[in-house]
Amino acid sequence: MEPALIVTVDIVLFTLSDGQLKIVLLRRELDPYAQQLALPGGYIHPEEDRDSLAAAERVLRQKTGLVSPYLEQLFTFSGGVRDPRGWSASIAYYALVHESVLQPDAEHRFELLAVDGLPDLPFDHNRIVAHASQRLRDKSTYSSLPCHLLPGQFTLTELQHTYEQVLGISLDKSVFRRKLGELDFLEAIPNAMRSGKHRPAQLYKLRDDARLALFNKTV
Amino acid sequence: MEPALIVTVDIVLFTLSDGQLKIVLLRRELDPYAQQLALPGGYIHPEEDRDSLAAAERVLRQKTGLVSPYLEQLFTFSGGVRDPRGWSASIAYYALVHESVLQPDAEHRFELLAVDGLPDLPFDHNRIVAHASQRLRDKSTYSSLPCHLLPGQFTLTELQHTYEQVLGISLDKSVFRRKLGELDFLEAIPNAMRSGKHRPAQLYKLRDDARLALFNKTV
Repeated sequence: MEPALIVTVDIVLFTLSDGQLKIVLLRRELDPYAQQLALPGGYIHPEEDRDSLAAAERVLRQKTGLVSPYLEQLFTFSGGVRDPRGWSASIAYYALVHESVLQPDAEHRFELLAVDGLPDLPFDHNRIVAHASQRLRDKSTYSSLPCHLLPGQFTLTELQHTYEQVLGISLDKSVFRRKLGELDFLEAIPNAMRSGKHRPAQLYKLRDDARLALFNKTV
Repeated sequence: MEPALIVTVDIVLFTLSDGQLKIVLLRRELDPYAQQLALPGGYIHPEEDRDSLAAAERVLRQKTGLVSPYLEQLFTFSGGVRDPRGWSASIAYYALVHESVLQPDAEHRFELLAVDGLPDLPFDHNRIVAHASQRLRDKSTYSSLPCHLLPGQFTLTELQHTYEQVLGISLDKSVFRRKLGELDFLEAIPNAMRSGKHRPAQLYKLRDDARLALFNKTV
């Protein structure tokens, strides 16, 4: 039998707020690094967690009160120097939610910090966030991923704006809409329109929260 | 302290042989599943392995005698039912080598089996292989990844043929060469030509074995 290793899950929970990509950080209760801001994370509970995804869902729920419809395994960070308690492996996940979902209650307190310009975080959490941000931005160039940063119902203009914020570039409206049309992952909500100072705009929702639609990419 | 978990690495080592995508399988010496063919894998040794990548390199070297220049973390497979010994996490990697590298010696014996049509493998190794094959094929549509299935020196025709075998499609020669030109990850070897029944063809090598060049993909 090999010596015991520390096996944890950590979650990078993204949202868009004030036009910036931000993540949820919690103040740690226990040592090491007590009182410091860190990613939501915790030990895997073999008696309780079916697998590491279930552990990530449990940790997210217990520590933030949140359920994220989109939770994807990112990468496993491991080694002898990342945690002062010993050789550890953290199976990292990332998740996306709309800002309105992030309402701390009396039991769950967290902070939202911009990804660009984070302070020094404990463990290798800066590295985990950098990896997750890169994955999010890469994957947003060819998939429906940014939809999960929107509320349940949104207009095509709001969707384009979300892509632009994540990618940090401007997109051509007609090209963007043609690509969306090819993918067919949106569903118009009958008789649901957003009115405002412009003419009313059709509201859409995702056809399937779990499915990630991919734009065509070929050699 | 939480109960000990089993933490291993497993490696899906791909090659192209007889026009088919194949993987390296080893006959297990010990229980569980003694004598059955399975992926090369083993426990992480916290005293010895800097991180899980180092563990994967060590396991590959010890079990097959091979060093793969391209070794990438795939996914961590985990849970209470995948290994009869208890709750386990396997940090899976995949690697690519040219067939000529796979020369078993007296100490290292392995078998090459086609990915399509594998027998039932122990643990969740069929699932790991399926995941790795999907990743390899997806990533080959937009990157230089298939180059690692070639020997150190190759012609552009051999490179195109390798992409076609991995992807299972025919590629247009001029489109393929234009895309290669955009990426600039190949280096012509001065005065090195392949002669044969056709006119001599220039030989190329990768500029940098470690770097994965990506084709342009945008929203």
